[in-house]
Amino acid sequence: MAAATFDVERLCAGDLRVAAALMRALDDELPGAREALAAIYPRGGRAFVAGVTGSPGVGKSTLVSALVTVVRARGERAAVVAVDPSSPFSGGALLGDRVRMQRHVLDEGVFIRSLATRGQQGGLSRSTAATVAVLDAAGFPVIFVETVGAGQAELDVADATDAVVVVTAPGLGDDVQALKVGLLEIADLLVVNKGDRDGADRAVADLTAMLALGARPVPPIFKTTATAVAGAGIEEVIDGLEALRRAPLADRAARRRRQAARQIAAIAAEQLRGRAHAALAAAASGDPLGRVINSVAERTLDPWSAAESLIAVLE
Amino acid sequence: MAAATFDVERLCAGDLRVAAALMRALDDELPGAREALAAIYPRGGRAFVAGVTGSPGVGKSTLVSALVTVVRARGERAAVVAVDPSSPFSGGALLGDRVRMQRHVLDEGVFIRSLATRGQQGGLSRSTAATVAVLDAAGFPVIFVETVGAGQAELDVADATDAVVVVTAPGLGDDVQALKVGLLEIADLLVVNKGDRDGADRAVADLTAMLALGARPVPPIFKTTATAVAGAGIEEVIDGLEALRRAPLADRAARRRRQAARQIAAIAAEQLRGRAHAALAAAASGDPLGRVINSVAERTLDPWSAAESLIAVLE
Repeated sequence: MAAATFDVERLCAGDLRVAAALMRALDDELPGAREALAAIYPRGGRAFVAGVTGSPGVGKSTLVSALVTVVRARGERAAVVAVDPSSPFSGGALLGDRVRMQRHVLDEGVFIRSLATRGQQGGLSRSTAATVAVLDAAGFPVIFVETVGAGQAELDVADATDAVVVVTAPGLGDDVQALKVGLLEIADLLVVNKGDRDGADRAVADLTAMLALGARPVPPIFKTTATAVAGAGIEEVIDGLEALRRAPLADRAARRRRQAARQIAAIAAEQLRGRAHAALAAAASGDPLGRVINSVAERTLDPWSAAESLIAVLE
Repeated sequence: MAAATFDVERLCAGDLRVAAALMRALDDELPGAREALAAIYPRGGRAFVAGVTGSPGVGKSTLVSALVTVVRARGERAAVVAVDPSSPFSGGALLGDRVRMQRHVLDEGVFIRSLATRGQQGGLSRSTAATVAVLDAAGFPVIFVETVGAGQAELDVADATDAVVVVTAPGLGDDVQALKVGLLEIADLLVVNKGDRDGADRAVADLTAMLALGARPVPPIFKTTATAVAGAGIEEVIDGLEALRRAPLADRAARRRRQAARQIAAIAAEQLRGRAHAALAAAASGDPLGRVINSVAERTLDPWSAAESLIAVLE
């Protein structure tokens, strides 16, 4: 296949058709796409990237939609990268929700990009970072990354963003407890959404008490009642994000060096994971690797020893 | 450090002190542990391993506890591997929940093992598979693996188990929608827990309708109201699992070959990820790798090119 060429200059001047074409090409791993990404990466770094994460059902997408509305009202363009399988942005939700999201589609100052998570074995942090890099180079000053807050993704979102908004809602059972373990540690800002529900003030009090026990300063906590258009508390969340955006450059530089190391490791690990899967998928029963798989399936060999054989083959 | 030795014969005869010592040694990656695991792996394969997965708040832990009660009442021993950060089994929940779980601790026919997920970058599927392999070799006929159903974990649980129970509950917002994307595809059996709540019958009907649209046969759907002791519908879930357990060996063999390939790939990828992280963590500013990190942080180099440099160093 001939390598596609992408007009880097036009992209960096804000041409969204070039940006969209490059994002599609990156998804499909077309030749030339990686080279274009390498060329635009040094042109970015001006965007303020906010991750929005939390369990399914807390209303992350509606909150993001409301935040975008406020950013737009204040005169800036905004992009949304949805990597949450339950997000209406990424097509995972009911038709009604998706239609409600369409209000931003008619606004040329808003760009929405969904990343499929269906069945994906790794690769998500790589494509998230690539999508953010393209939108950043294309000149979006504010980028929201919406991701479901569980497992690896909760860590990856902190590596790919300048600030992490952790969202919860009252009445989700063990949810505040689940938050305690991983998400609270990466939260730069907390939101208790569905603030009109019973238990919202209690959830804010619980979070405050829980965070007070921790070693680091308590991040700001906001109560919101997001609707797709706006809602209570949304302006305050944007003000909180603006405060983080104005943080001393030295603080951001330290964060970016830590992030760089983790991002490189995550991308390298995903590349290696891809190679491992490809090698196994290509293995036939008669191959050495196919025999290794059969031995594990028949339990004559353990999978840890098998993994070492596989690594030796990859190298 | 001298390699610890583990009495494989005693472990395979059911000695839980040896099993527990080996699991701790595997967690700590002590010398000798991997060798013992390789030695016991061929001795396992008799356990029926059921994954129990779903979003936080659906009552997975209470369901697992009730399922264990029924398995015990039917005269079999049972083990629980909790990899869900919100699980009371793994210490993530309120004291009251944890105390409720203690009822099984007094029962010598029940073994509970928690795997920490806090801040873990990968490694979870490796330790889950290793823990299951030890409990299997130690003779537990039934093993439940409780995991939060989101992201990578939802795929890994299918690779490490003979059957996957996907749990949901009414009133969790987008939850049924979130399920649609990933979890429904791996469900061998579905449970709508908190069946005494409004909307439980509607949730069962929605799931049935959704699954009827899919390509594969609709898996059985159960409505439960689990309490830690037992509850409505629990016997029926165990009957459903018993039906799967009696599935023709040929079916299980095909599943195990697919699982073997994916498990080997996951373990290899995690090993490589560990090496990548270790290399970056050891990099000083003056090193070639330290300079690569700085270049990415300063955006003079993109992280994808940096990842390739890192892979070259690892090989």
